[in-house]
Amino acid sequence: MTTIDLNADVGESFGRWSLGDDAAMISAVSSVNVACGFHAGDAGTMYAACLSAARAGTAVGAHPGYRDLSGFGRRALDMEPELLTGEVIYQIGALQSLALAAGTRVSYVKPHGALYNTIAHDPRQAQAVINAVLAVSPDLPLVVLPGSVVEKLAGGAGLRTVAEAFADRAYNADGTLLSRTRPDAVLEDLGEITDHVLRLAVDGKIQAVDGTVIDVVAESICVHGDTPGAVAMGQAVRTALEEHGVTVASFI
Amino acid sequence: MTTIDLNADVGESFGRWSLGDDAAMISAVSSVNVACGFHAGDAGTMYAACLSAARAGTAVGAHPGYRDLSGFGRRALDMEPELLTGEVIYQIGALQSLALAAGTRVSYVKPHGALYNTIAHDPRQAQAVINAVLAVSPDLPLVVLPGSVVEKLAGGAGLRTVAEAFADRAYNADGTLLSRTRPDAVLEDLGEITDHVLRLAVDGKIQAVDGTVIDVVAESICVHGDTPGAVAMGQAVRTALEEHGVTVASFI
Amino acid sequence: MTTIDLNADVGESFGRWSLGDDAAMISAVSSVNVACGFHAGDAGTMYAACLSAARAGTAVGAHPGYRDLSGFGRRALDMEPELLTGEVIYQIGALQSLALAAGTRVSYVKPHGALYNTIAHDPRQAQAVINAVLAVSPDLPLVVLPGSVVEKLAGGAGLRTVAEAFADRAYNADGTLLSRTRPDAVLEDLGEITDHVLRLAVDGKIQAVDGTVIDVVAESICVHGDTPGAVAMGQAVRTALEEHGVTVASFI
Amino acid sequence: MTTIDLNADVGESFGRWSLGDDAAMISAVSSVNVACGFHAGDAGTMYAACLSAARAGTAVGAHPGYRDLSGFGRRALDMEPELLTGEVIYQIGALQSLALAAGTRVSYVKPHGALYNTIAHDPRQAQAVINAVLAVSPDLPLVVLPGSVVEKLAGGAGLRTVAEAFADRAYNADGTLLSRTRPDAVLEDLGEITDHVLRLAVDGKIQAVDGTVIDVVAESICVHGDTPGAVAMGQAVRTALEEHGVTVASFI
Repeated sequence: MTTIDLNADVGESFGRWSLGDDAAMISAVSSVNVACGFHAGDAGTMYAACLSAARAGTAVGAHPGYRDLSGFGRRALDMEPELLTGEVIYQIGALQSLALAAGTRVSYVKPHGALYNTIAHDPRQAQAVINAVLAVSPDLPLVVLPGSVVEKLAGGAGLRTVAEAFADRAYNADGTLLSRTRPDAVLEDLGEITDHVLRLAVDGKIQAVDGTVIDVVAESICVHGDTPGAVAMGQAVRTALEEHGVTVASFI
Repeated sequence: MTTIDLNADVGESFGRWSLGDDAAMISAVSSVNVACGFHAGDAGTMYAACLSAARAGTAVGAHPGYRDLSGFGRRALDMEPELLTGEVIYQIGALQSLALAAGTRVSYVKPHGALYNTIAHDPRQAQAVINAVLAVSPDLPLVVLPGSVVEKLAGGAGLRTVAEAFADRAYNADGTLLSRTRPDAVLEDLGEITDHVLRLAVDGKIQAVDGTVIDVVAESICVHGDTPGAVAMGQAVRTALEEHGVTVASFI
Repeated sequence: MTTIDLNADVGESFGRWSLGDDAAMISAVSSVNVACGFHAGDAGTMYAACLSAARAGTAVGAHPGYRDLSGFGRRALDMEPELLTGEVIYQIGALQSLALAAGTRVSYVKPHGALYNTIAHDPRQAQAVINAVLAVSPDLPLVVLPGSVVEKLAGGAGLRTVAEAFADRAYNADGTLLSRTRPDAVLEDLGEITDHVLRLAVDGKIQAVDGTVIDVVAESICVHGDTPGAVAMGQAVRTALEEHGVTVASFI
Repeated sequence: MTTIDLNADVGESFGRWSLGDDAAMISAVSSVNVACGFHAGDAGTMYAACLSAARAGTAVGAHPGYRDLSGFGRRALDMEPELLTGEVIYQIGALQSLALAAGTRVSYVKPHGALYNTIAHDPRQAQAVINAVLAVSPDLPLVVLPGSVVEKLAGGAGLRTVAEAFADRAYNADGTLLSRTRPDAVLEDLGEITDHVLRLAVDGKIQAVDGTVIDVVAESICVHGDTPGAVAMGQAVRTALEEHGVTVASFI
């Protein structure tokens, strides 16, 4: 009996600006990464996402990012580690408080966007994020890219890590993601996506762009949340997994 | 044996911009209202204030404000109550997390600036703030202006309130503060300020601008934190109180 | 031969967040109020709107608002007049520069949201906005609510004002807008809207909610830009006007 | 008869937070780089700086930076060139408008902080800044680091560049600045600073940290504006130059 988690980003609206269909996505997946106000997410949006997650039984994760609303946290920012630690603590705490008010709790941490990418290779920022989790909730697992710098450092620091794979991204033969500058970096065909996810969840394997089949161990699969077809993709992935006997459930 | 609390605003720096001498003020008073990022206070500043408070044994209060960095939270903002509740929850949670990381905890809530003034008379916003405290930490007392709308509503909702008076403000005969548009609204002479504070702490009385002596019950006295002589005023007030046998201690 | 202007808000996206179909709206109307970055509008969005307007021959107006991204400039803000003057100058100048780069120019000023509403009745803020226009481009007309405080003060200061009416708003018998708290404040039926606009443009009359027919002189009609059916409404209004011999053209 | 420009950053306050003594610095130097709101500088601060500069006859330059108030524009930001062009146009235009209102004009552009450093070596961002100046005011000179990528690209694009040296920075033998991570990167002794500036202005030479004397051609010398002794340094440098027969005047 195989179990895997599906995670997606939610809570990315801000004031007058709506992004994504949070309620639908929250029903489709088992874990939601809720934006914490620095790259997206006002308090009303965050609270609503927590409330929906509480009702649906979906796990809530903190999704801290760089303080960059106009860039949506997708631009690398050269930050002092101490300040980054403080800003991640701040964001986790803010969401913990809103989650509590909504009748749920923060169960894990997954950094967002450029911060996620930076800590995959930069040990200073990676350690800064780890220090934040250690300082406030050392029991919270950190969702990471397998093989990344942050995965190794977090393991060394005694944090639980959850390796994730991506439902709609193409892989290189060494297990890294194909660069987004490549036109074939993102899978768009639903059938291709579900095949990819099933092979990953059932066999622990991914076929790289050059045809090589590689072993990938992932406890969670990320479905992106802010594209027009995101909810449909999330639902299709979940249905395909369940039809093949895979249970979709949080890793908590 | 009389005891009274002295409170002051700290954590009001932001990035490159410094404001006030937090470490000195934290040593001078018994409670510090730490800005929570919306009107002032980046995560580094907030954490440093919590760390100083933990070392000095000074109580830490959350000091949430309107989301208005450029106006320092001093401009009335017409907010939807639900969003205000969310923003206050967010700010309290962010500070709770940083306080925990610094080895202390948030022990009370005192709204800042225009939010403080608005909830003194506006029941919708007052109830929104009360709802925030009830949702996350109903045991946290709320520091309020005596006789204000928020004091009455908080009492009705089962929240503990802590009435405060101001060390350097002149009062009307009805117990309200003299408007800041009046040139004599703010006391600047240290001797006058300490006389005012002693009469308040020892006798529970204030002499209003028209000479009338009125009864004022206050558990805490606010000394302002962002003026050049703020720390000296805080220290002078504390010394005067202690010399007259009044213990300066948090109300917690 | 009757001529009237149609104006709509554009440039209201911000970073990752899109709002409205600017290109389509810019083709449908004769004047567009471009957000200037304080309540909405990043520089890329503003530039793109100016470029589309330059191509379509649509007049560009500056649409300054309160510094309040999270509230979209829709919340009343108690501002010092001098600072408001500075912020309006800043916003007009920023757009003028982007318009120049896009091959067009700013031809008028129409304040946004809560600022528009405030200067309809508050002489201090109204004068602050007028002072901004006088300081940088005293030849720019100011689009105003007929009968408002700002209309009178601007006239007295020698600024040209352009009175506007609203395509989809219900009116009271005294010529003021029905409060948005009323369920019938906003017209939603396209036929009703076009009837209302035609009567206004052709006869200079509006039927108030109580049935009274009142005289309204408007040089411009505002169609709202950020609702799902906004572009369709703009196009329907334009078509109806043109079919009845009314020329839709900027007031410049 | 030798002439050189002295430039300094001003307009770096923001709302409640003051930074530097703008009026004094504006009197001490011949050109001031006025922050444009993205890394520092609210509209009131910018206007006041322009007004002081107009009265003192000091040239006003636009000092655009990354949109990063909490980092004061000192953190490298990975930006799309098109958006960067737009943001620089926006900032220049905003200041032009405030300068006009204050009775002066923007006479040059000098990028701030991390943007200044990035365009010294990154051709994409350098070209983006150049494109902004070309789009709005191709007659405005660009103040640059001698030998930098932006200097070469600007020259090729037909923009005038003004090479600057730094009054209080130590140099490597190849003419680059000593890294700020070195303890001896910043000169603090006033005598050492004035010797350095005189040699530079009079002889066109700098003594590098290893003792090598190198040729440096600079039309302007930057004195930093946000340190406690900044104004004193500016005044001392000006006095030393004038005592040695060097005229301090804008390069315009």
